[in-house]
Amino acid sequence: MKIYFAGSIRGGRDDQNLYFSIINELQKYGTVLTEHIGDKELTGLGEVKRTDKEIFDRDMEWVKEADLVVAEVSTPSLGVGYELGQAESMNKPVMCLYRETEGKRLSAMVVGNEYFKLNIYRNLDDIVRILKTYFASKE
Amino acid sequence: MKIYFAGSIRGGRDDQNLYFSIINELQKYGTVLTEHIGDKELTGLGEVKRTDKEIFDRDMEWVKEADLVVAEVSTPSLGVGYELGQAESMNKPVMCLYRETEGKRLSAMVVGNEYFKLNIYRNLDDIVRILKTYFASKE
Repeated sequence: MKIYFAGSIRGGRDDQNLYFSIINELQKYGTVLTEHIGDKELTGLGEVKRTDKEIFDRDMEWVKEADLVVAEVSTPSLGVGYELGQAESMNKPVMCLYRETEGKRLSAMVVGNEYFKLNIYRNLDDIVRILKTYFASKE
Repeated sequence: MKIYFAGSIRGGRDDQNLYFSIINELQKYGTVLTEHIGDKELTGLGEVKRTDKEIFDRDMEWVKEADLVVAEVSTPSLGVGYELGQAESMNKPVMCLYRETEGKRLSAMVVGNEYFKLNIYRNLDDIVRILKTYFASKE
């Protein structure tokens, strides 16, 4: 099982630690193609050793290759939104993980879209449970 | 000419005034389907009189209907990113407008993607010129 994990990079790295933990968790179920999203060395300026075209081409190849897309959508991000749109147009299964924040609302393009399996969580324990239930249902 | 203008709502309304001005400018060239994006009454909580599903369904109908998608991409936004991904998969012409900010970088999913016509601007005068040039080339 190849998993494309999507999280914010240039949209903001506030959740980098959490991405790292989610990736660790996902690795129990398959290969995470985008392991770098959890890297603490990766700042909001993005990858510096690749051109934007190289990053884009690689990421789109990975989405094509993926059996599942898991997107953490608590931080607004153009890249994550774009990947969601592309993953849907390629008919990839897509799971979204969202942490509610007072005074903020998740995009209607995610909440209002029945294609996406949206899961609300409060902490990593919730995510562990959500993933366990999801992958158990696939066995 | 029907134009779908995409700008951040729940991702943040810092540029609401600018969206309003861009929409005014675009209305010289066609019908802007998403006029509400510039509305100063529309807060970061989004439209309150419609469900998320209604918003999603309407917006996707509008993208399908549009002859051109113009996206202001300076504020990270899941919705704008998603619309970019969907517009590309529908082969719609897409123009992006981006204002550079120190310490920030635009997503590689936009910069590295040759499908999008990316325009960097500093102020509304630049946008007026960019649109004039674009629409003159279409006549």
